[in-house]
This record gives sequence, C-alpha cells and structure tokens, in this order.
Amino acid sequence: MTQAIRILGIDPGLRRTGWGVVETAGSSLRFVGAGTVRSDDKGELAARLCQIHDGLASVLAEWAPNEAAVEQTFVNKDAAATLKLGQARGICMLVPARAGLAVAEYAPNAVKKAVIGVGHGDKKQIHMMVRVLLPKAVTDSEHAADALAIAICHAHHRQSAVGRLAMAAVG
Amino acid sequence: MTQAIRILGIDPGLRRTGWGVVETAGSSLRFVGAGTVRSDDKGELAARLCQIHDGLASVLAEWAPNEAAVEQTFVNKDAAATLKLGQARGICMLVPARAGLAVAEYAPNAVKKAVIGVGHGDKKQIHMMVRVLLPKAVTDSEHAADALAIAICHAHHRQSAVGRLAMAAVG
Repeated sequence: MTQAIRILGIDPGLRRTGWGVVETAGSSLRFVGAGTVRSDDKGELAARLCQIHDGLASVLAEWAPNEAAVEQTFVNKDAAATLKLGQARGICMLVPARAGLAVAEYAPNAVKKAVIGVGHGDKKQIHMMVRVLLPKAVTDSEHAADALAIAICHAHHRQSAVGRLAMAAVG
Repeated sequence: MTQAIRILGIDPGLRRTGWGVVETAGSSLRFVGAGTVRSDDKGELAARLCQIHDGLASVLAEWAPNEAAVEQTFVNKDAAATLKLGQARGICMLVPARAGLAVAEYAPNAVKKAVIGVGHGDKKQIHMMVRVLLPKAVTDSEHAADALAIAICHAHHRQSAVGRLAMAAVG
C-alpha cells in the first residue's frame, strides 16, 4: 500500500496568495482544501508580509502538508511589480521551509504541462482541468485554483520520480 | 534627557545581507554593531531564505533594536535579479516586523542625502562618511557599511520628525 502524501501548492502574490492542498497516494489524487490569503492593500509593506506569513502558517498548522510547491513566477510586468511579487514569494518559500517541508519550484509551463498535457494554454483551461482532476475542489479565487494546479504538478512530478526510483531498484 | 533608541539598518541581498545597529539620543549617534548574513550560494532558494531569516533573527535577539529601516532597493538589473532581491528583501522586512518593530523604508537617494548631504554620490563617498559619522564602526563587508548608512538615514529622519513634533507642541 502506498502512503498518502499531502502536498501544499502556493501561488504567491502580495495582494492575494492562493493555496491548495491535495493528497496523493500512488496515482490517486484527492482534494483536501484550498483558499486565499489576503493582505491589506492600504497597509504598510512589512505588515502585509506579516499577514501573508501568518496566513500561510495557519494553513500549515491546519492542514499539515508533507511537501510544498511554489510556482517559479513568470515575470511579465515592470521591475516594481516584480520586486513586490518577489517579496511575497520570499515569504511563501520561507514559511513551509521553516516548518521543515521540502519546497519544490515549478515553471509555469511545467504546471500547464502537468495539468492540461501541453506547456501552453490559458488560465481557463487550467482551471477547467483542475475541476476535472479534483471534482470535489472548492476554491474561493483564481489564485486558489492556480495553487491547486501547482500542487497537482508536484504530485505528478514526485510520482514520476518515485516511479523512476522503483524502476531503478528493480533494474 | 533624551532616551536612546537603537536602530537596525538592513541592506538586503540574497547572497549577502548587511546589517548595522546604531544608537541615537537627541542628535548624538553611536555605533553599536554591524555584520553580514551570508547564504549558501549552492543551497536551494528556500534554504537560503531560511538562512537569512535565522541570521537576522539572531541579530535582533543579540542587539535588541527598537526600530528598523530597509533600503527601497534600486532596481537596475534584469527581472530575474530583481525577483531574487525581492525574495531576500521580503525576509528582511518580515523578521523585524514580526518582532514588533516599525520598519521604515528609504530610497537610495534619501540614504545618500542623509549621509553625504546630497542625493547623489558613489558608494566610496558613503562608506567614507559612515566612518566619519561612526568612527568606532567595524564592518566586515560593504553590505554592513551600507546597512549602517541606512540606519544613519533613519536616525536623521526620525530626529527631524521628533523635532517637528516638538515644534508643533511648542507652537
């Protein structure tokens, strides 16, 4: 019997950070929880980073994931936006790492490939496939759905890695 | 008698984060400590962010500053470098904020103006003026010297703010 592993996917953002937890055992995949950590637009940067920290720390305490995965954020805006995103992303990497979880990183096209089968496609297709793969998923934002996609991507990759290890052991 | 206030200045960077603590009472300024938090180049990003976190947490525990100031990082490189810097900077804002300190932010030209009197000038001039203003300062890197410059900038600005408040009270 394969042991179930809980994976926390995180979609970092200064205003909204999405999170999603899935459970994987062998090739099965199950929705556990998802949501959005919000920071106060009007607040100072340091306070907003604390809100992201505390929100994610609560998620870890409540859902006890075993591993985490964060998107390697696509940089498509100006430098100021990139810096903001970077600051939020730093917190999103720190919180699970400090809790002792391995934190994997995936490029956006790796997430797309794992979820919709090809390395390109729009957000709508990703969200549709998240609903197909996790029919019981309830999400309160697009960020939460994106976070589930990242968690699915990690489930897929770690499954392949486990498969490769098993093959190597047999070989 | 004016109460002494300890200010922690931070110069964020993924490889090297400089920190410097000064004590200010009225218009006097005194060097307390400075150093550099290093992260392992070969390590994974999440582990490196933890190293920055733990290093700064130790500085806070050892030197017990009352307020913190971080440079509003000048974005002069490519997006990937900006994202890296942002991640480190997020941690540098988070650690003092979680410890209950107010975290001020200063643009590089504000730091230059406070330290060398004008809003432009090179690193050498800044480091020379740091040595003039804090003759007892010992620094183990340029980042530590930059961090002291940020702390001096905050001492200068909070002094002006206190002065304005006193004037307002008198007026």
